[in-house]
Amino acid sequence: MPKLHTPLCDLLGTRLPIIQAPMAGGPTTPALVAAASKAGALGSFGFAYTQPEAMQRDVEAVRALTDAPINLNFFVNTQPAAVAPEAQSGAINAIAGYYQALGLPVPAPVRAPYAPDLNAQLSMAEDIQPAVVTFHLSDLPAEKLNRLRARGIKAGGSATCVAEALHLEALGVDFIIAQGGEAGGHRGTFQRNPYDAMTGTFALTRLIVRAVKIPVVAAGGIMDGAGIAAVLALGAQGAQLGTAFLPCTESGASAIHKQSLLAAREDTTTVTEKFTGKPARGLVNRFIREMNASNAPQLEFPAQGSLSGPLRTASGKSGNPDFLAMWAGQAAPLSREMSTAQLVVTLEHETLEAIERLVALCR
Amino acid sequence: MPKLHTPLCDLLGTRLPIIQAPMAGGPTTPALVAAASKAGALGSFGFAYTQPEAMQRDVEAVRALTDAPINLNFFVNTQPAAVAPEAQSGAINAIAGYYQALGLPVPAPVRAPYAPDLNAQLSMAEDIQPAVVTFHLSDLPAEKLNRLRARGIKAGGSATCVAEALHLEALGVDFIIAQGGEAGGHRGTFQRNPYDAMTGTFALTRLIVRAVKIPVVAAGGIMDGAGIAAVLALGAQGAQLGTAFLPCTESGASAIHKQSLLAAREDTTTVTEKFTGKPARGLVNRFIREMNASNAPQLEFPAQGSLSGPLRTASGKSGNPDFLAMWAGQAAPLSREMSTAQLVVTLEHETLEAIERLVALCR
Repeated sequence: MPKLHTPLCDLLGTRLPIIQAPMAGGPTTPALVAAASKAGALGSFGFAYTQPEAMQRDVEAVRALTDAPINLNFFVNTQPAAVAPEAQSGAINAIAGYYQALGLPVPAPVRAPYAPDLNAQLSMAEDIQPAVVTFHLSDLPAEKLNRLRARGIKAGGSATCVAEALHLEALGVDFIIAQGGEAGGHRGTFQRNPYDAMTGTFALTRLIVRAVKIPVVAAGGIMDGAGIAAVLALGAQGAQLGTAFLPCTESGASAIHKQSLLAAREDTTTVTEKFTGKPARGLVNRFIREMNASNAPQLEFPAQGSLSGPLRTASGKSGNPDFLAMWAGQAAPLSREMSTAQLVVTLEHETLEAIERLVALCR
Repeated sequence: MPKLHTPLCDLLGTRLPIIQAPMAGGPTTPALVAAASKAGALGSFGFAYTQPEAMQRDVEAVRALTDAPINLNFFVNTQPAAVAPEAQSGAINAIAGYYQALGLPVPAPVRAPYAPDLNAQLSMAEDIQPAVVTFHLSDLPAEKLNRLRARGIKAGGSATCVAEALHLEALGVDFIIAQGGEAGGHRGTFQRNPYDAMTGTFALTRLIVRAVKIPVVAAGGIMDGAGIAAVLALGAQGAQLGTAFLPCTESGASAIHKQSLLAAREDTTTVTEKFTGKPARGLVNRFIREMNASNAPQLEFPAQGSLSGPLRTASGKSGNPDFLAMWAGQAAPLSREMSTAQLVVTLEHETLEAIERLVALCR
């Protein structure tokens, strides 16, 4: 009986070299994370916007279901200086019409803090002691990284170019996530202009595999076992899939987000800063189309996310795709509707089949 | 003894499922094409800018060396209306300073025709009767495609999105080249805004493989056997490599172009329209950086190419990387210096090794 195993599996403590990508803002419910981990992948919480108490609650919910390894993911970014309420009018005016279109009042100026305190989150992560912590948008200060690793937690960081991968390796991470240009959600770029670091998953994975000595996990555009087999052929030791898990039964993505993914027939994604203040890839909708074209003023990340938050939430709840951030990778048309456990098992079987097909070519 | 073979090999008449990409404007010398074909790949001429008599001469030079199958590639585009000399001053002024920097006179207005006549090229292709013809930048009218295929010539077209692939399949091509966002040189997009059709090779290959029934050849960011194994895992039946062949001994790329590829350590490519009038990916240099930033006026494709031609040629000849179009894919840092035959054999062995490594993962 063939089985799919790389040294990364031993590092993470998982059966399979598959990571269910952390996706902040709703999709990564405890039910999704638990089901992914239980099935043999690494279930991951996207905790970018989650306060420590809620982190604890979510992890307890998983641990009631499984003792399989899980991953907690955080956004690393310096909290920007508070934006004075009177300086926010341009950004508010730019999206006020969308609030009105949904029958919502014009939003009030947002107030700092715009995101949870990373130190408090990391301190809670030390208490939780998950198998893995990953971070996104920047590097983690060495001292914080070392504290996690001293607890036996394995740490991974996102790189969108060779220089970032080399930097993270030197910092001491256990593995690198090579985030290709295809990937949905926020670009993790921290050493270059993000628009100059949109190297495709194919090229980036191979470049980073050749540049570093630690394990590489490929991310971006991977939706099935053929994709997993392909990144393993490129020398990656694992694959991180986000969009593929969004339509799963246990995913907390809104119904309209799931429907839009399942209806996609073409890569209709693009990168926008207008939802949160940082570039992120999602399905093009009215908000993205109009805001990207308008060059309207926006607040810094993550304050812009606070400003657009009620709009996105209301849009999702009312089943209106126009004002929702429907993060998605470029291979969104390969989305499938199934349970999380079924997806993980399907990915495993498909990967083995894809490898068997390759072997048949060489006979 | 394992061997690498897909049904595409039978279609093209090659030993290996590897296409040396057509690269117009110098790189694809008869020596390069002959060496690639003789070694088992499909050697390809980039004939976009080549007059019929020169086509004939080049092919005769190959046929004196090998009777292995070759491919002739053409750019399909409507010849734009002639640009009146007096309407060209903006575009001339935008690049006059670069001509002066190389000690060249300010260029004169360019005169139509700006490119060889496609009908005359295709008529010569019918006479030459190569194994394969591929086309780029648009579809080929059905009548012309049918004439080629009636002669037993296999035809392939480039697609940068699912819709283009479905269109080409319906038109009757024998295979599709899925040109991912990583690819160097001109974007083949013809049904979308090229900047909205930059899907990465990884996602695009899988999307097109799932959408069409005919063989798919992946292109963009493939530089070694690991890359070839990866696209085969994605369901492609072959890989087309351009940048990998540029530094080869037999390649006609300028010495400075070769050196710049071999010196690359990071994806420092970008897409520019400023050399030819159509978006194409190359290594960032002074010309691209300044012209992309300036939003300077330009002529339509291919007239802009005529206007920048002497500048590019002189820059290449003088070993100055500043004003040369150094087309390159995003995986340029994986460039290697070797003979064409050595590269083809290396790719073959590496692909088999990559597949063996995958198999070892499943034991």
